Amino acid sequence: MQTTEKTEPKLSELKTRLSEINDIEAAASLLYWDQATYMPPGGAAARGRQLATLQQISHSKFTEPSIGQLLEDLRPLEESLPYDSDEASLIRITRIKYETAVRVPAEFMAKFSMHRTQSYEAWAMARPRNDFALVQPHLEKTLDLSRELANFFPGYEHIADPLIDFADYGMKASFLRSLFAELRLELVPIVEAITSQKPFDDSFLSQFYPEAQQLEFSLKLIEQLGYDFHRGRQDKTHHPFMTNFSIGDVRITTRVYENDLSQALFSTIHEMGHALYEQGINQNYEGTLLAAGTSSGVHESQSRLWENMVGRSIGFWKFFYSQLQSTFPKQLGDVSLDTFYRAINKVGRSLIRTDADEVTYNLHVMIRFDLELQMLEGSLDVKDLPEAWNERYRSDLGIVPESDTDGVLQDVHWYTGQIGGMFQGYTLGNLMSAQFFEAALQSHSEILTEIEQGHCITLHNWLKDKIYQHGCKYTATELIRGVTGANLRIEPFIRYIRQKYGQLYTL
Amino acid sequence: MQTTEKTEPKLSELKTRLSEINDIEAAASLLYWDQATYMPPGGAAARGRQLATLQQISHSKFTEPSIGQLLEDLRPLEESLPYDSDEASLIRITRIKYETAVRVPAEFMAKFSMHRTQSYEAWAMARPRNDFALVQPHLEKTLDLSRELANFFPGYEHIADPLIDFADYGMKASFLRSLFAELRLELVPIVEAITSQKPFDDSFLSQFYPEAQQLEFSLKLIEQLGYDFHRGRQDKTHHPFMTNFSIGDVRITTRVYENDLSQALFSTIHEMGHALYEQGINQNYEGTLLAAGTSSGVHESQSRLWENMVGRSIGFWKFFYSQLQSTFPKQLGDVSLDTFYRAINKVGRSLIRTDADEVTYNLHVMIRFDLELQMLEGSLDVKDLPEAWNERYRSDLGIVPESDTDGVLQDVHWYTGQIGGMFQGYTLGNLMSAQFFEAALQSHSEILTEIEQGHCITLHNWLKDKIYQHGCKYTATELIRGVTGANLRIEPFIRYIRQKYGQLYTL
Repeated sequence: MQTTEKTEPKLSELKTRLSEINDIEAAASLLYWDQATYMPPGGAAARGRQLATLQQISHSKFTEPSIGQLLEDLRPLEESLPYDSDEASLIRITRIKYETAVRVPAEFMAKFSMHRTQSYEAWAMARPRNDFALVQPHLEKTLDLSRELANFFPGYEHIADPLIDFADYGMKASFLRSLFAELRLELVPIVEAITSQKPFDDSFLSQFYPEAQQLEFSLKLIEQLGYDFHRGRQDKTHHPFMTNFSIGDVRITTRVYENDLSQALFSTIHEMGHALYEQGINQNYEGTLLAAGTSSGVHESQSRLWENMVGRSIGFWKFFYSQLQSTFPKQLGDVSLDTFYRAINKVGRSLIRTDADEVTYNLHVMIRFDLELQMLEGSLDVKDLPEAWNERYRSDLGIVPESDTDGVLQDVHWYTGQIGGMFQGYTLGNLMSAQFFEAALQSHSEILTEIEQGHCITLHNWLKDKIYQHGCKYTATELIRGVTGANLRIEPFIRYIRQKYGQLYTL
Repeated sequence: MQTTEKTEPKLSELKTRLSEINDIEAAASLLYWDQATYMPPGGAAARGRQLATLQQISHSKFTEPSIGQLLEDLRPLEESLPYDSDEASLIRITRIKYETAVRVPAEFMAKFSMHRTQSYEAWAMARPRNDFALVQPHLEKTLDLSRELANFFPGYEHIADPLIDFADYGMKASFLRSLFAELRLELVPIVEAITSQKPFDDSFLSQFYPEAQQLEFSLKLIEQLGYDFHRGRQDKTHHPFMTNFSIGDVRITTRVYENDLSQALFSTIHEMGHALYEQGINQNYEGTLLAAGTSSGVHESQSRLWENMVGRSIGFWKFFYSQLQSTFPKQLGDVSLDTFYRAINKVGRSLIRTDADEVTYNLHVMIRFDLELQMLEGSLDVKDLPEAWNERYRSDLGIVPESDTDGVLQDVHWYTGQIGGMFQGYTLGNLMSAQFFEAALQSHSEILTEIEQGHCITLHNWLKDKIYQHGCKYTATELIRGVTGANLRIEPFIRYIRQKYGQLYTL
């Protein structure tokens, strides 16, 4: 026990230091939330500077050599404790993040950050003008910088691997490529089968739905699904997101289109899924690095599980549709449950990823993932990107954008410097959501009955117990294996799609 | 010019360091604003910690010896420049604040801060229970700590002087005591003359005024008065306040009572006055210590000038009353302008400072100021405070509270550790507002005509030019002398009161 006596004060010092850094990051998150919700335009210039200052202070405090020394001093304690004890996990996860943070020089971060802003500004001009040439030099520079960033982590198998690690730790380009290729092979024929049939009518979703009622209904909905308003709130923003300032304050935002009922409704459930994850983290982790979702993929698995597997299921609407009809009697009074259910699950070949249905969504994502890997490798030149993009849309989705605006310029990600570390999370999330949901149903078949009764207590508790409470104690890979007893695989997702869409269409 | 060549980089380094500190303080202010406006209850515990962390970081960065060294290195530059040049002022003001900050040990600040929280909690229990004994030991400790704080600044004339300096730099207890005594001598007979007359009817102000219309009207009002919504916004809070995160983002808050029209209306104009000051600061001062109002008194002079001299004037309502009547036709349709004007300027002997009218308000403040000075000196024991309080209300206002709840326990200030540094600002503000307003009218007699036309462009520009743009470059004393050509004195306020209330009552 001498180890413990010597290391206890060190552990407590580490927690104090991390808590201070966490406070700074919470303040930075609030600066961002405020910028996106309530800040008057005149605050913009100073806000950018304030955000940069707080991020710089937090980074510099986290990368102090004394943190490294503490982590070294704590090795004996870590090794004396079970791998998944809270203490060993805290030390392990902090070390992983510390070792990542110290490898990237502050000057590089500042340079990349400045470039990101310039590149974003070029994109904001280029997209409405359909002018890819405007962003081309910026994207080329982003690729150079991304490779430089990756090279701070030598010894990788693929140059994208270190970039993927930032968001989905431990996932490798080679694994993802073959996983995604398998998935594409399954999905393309399903999409073909569906789109050769008569499309569902969803025109009634585009009637006028007043904002106030949309907001009221969706707030009622997520309260019933388990979102804790004592520890959260919803505000309006241009792009919906989830953010948190502590485990006790996890907020979501939404946007409302008065001529599109599905926008606010499903984005609210989506962000609520992210929020349930963060609200469910063990309170003891407050102020440490463990108090966060474990990866982009696992986070997205929760938003998609709640949005799609729950929120677009027939059982869910068997309960809630009459309430929706009462809220919008003029618009939905004559629309049957079956017609509504089909409309919110309409599958089609479309150009815009963010509007895509569950079946085609991953095809959109995989196109981006493959192309960014090719660009990072150098096997695809930026100047040839628009053509490659259109070619892939033709082969995978059977549709070609008429302009780059609706093609290669549609997503902001690449143009804010996110290359090779972002898109995979969306498809990983979809695959994981199905694998987790299948495991939940195998343990608790009553989940589907409960959904038909308008609540998700068993499902929510199961997710809290298996996933949420652990924060980022386990990597995504460990979590999936631990929770589902198997490695990540495409079968549960394909089974889910075949079953749900097999009932909606002839497959 | 060798001086400049050597010192320019130092000045630029000082500005960079101050800008970083300013960013941290802006983030802390946002944490506070959010806590008071939108934060869900679950965020409270972490929020307290986050605020403390940011304040600690900001204090520690500001008190680094290297800041002191920079200020020393910049002495030659400061001395080579005119006193009120931006550069010399920046160095001078920063030095004053630095020398204050380094004298108070961080451990003392932490101790005092912890005590403040405990004392506040005791007060929050004691006030509704009318139980002064509950707060007595806390107030005694506050006095001990306040004396300890004062003693970090030896050489004072009165022990309250260093505490007054924090808020109203350069004002001395001896000066304020004799200034306030003079003022009391003038006010007491005026109050007696007024209150011997039949009170005005203001019962119609207590009808039902729906919140939405109250908010809409007051927002329209302050927009017309010059509040820049591009660089600000208004939200609801329990206690109204003004806060800012940059010169481009100066926000106010309000509260609405649906059974009291005057609450939201005048608190909105009051906070707008504070905000006009901060919005009017020279943009070049952004991120430095110059970008702030110069003292509590001068700040309050602006809130009171706009609230009372403009917002409760007959000319103002000659223009705006018909708009108010259109907003509330049922409630005010039959109420004449004259009746309304009398109601919002009704004078009475009352117990609660925050509800007091212009004439009696300073009597409330001076009671508190005198008593806190006596307690600091040790000539009044805390246990005898309630009796002394009641005695002063009897002699100065001719009214005695029936309970401590409406007496010595009514204000939060003393119970959050603010002893000897707070109340004087309110009366200083009233005096200064009259002295500034009189000077403005002497230069621009058209101000009164403009107010009757529903705008204040000349007044606002004059205030920007004479006061706002300078931030805290000049001390209150310098500013008053520079702007009005005279030292601070009570005559303009007494003239203002005699003139306005001489028309309303027989004096």
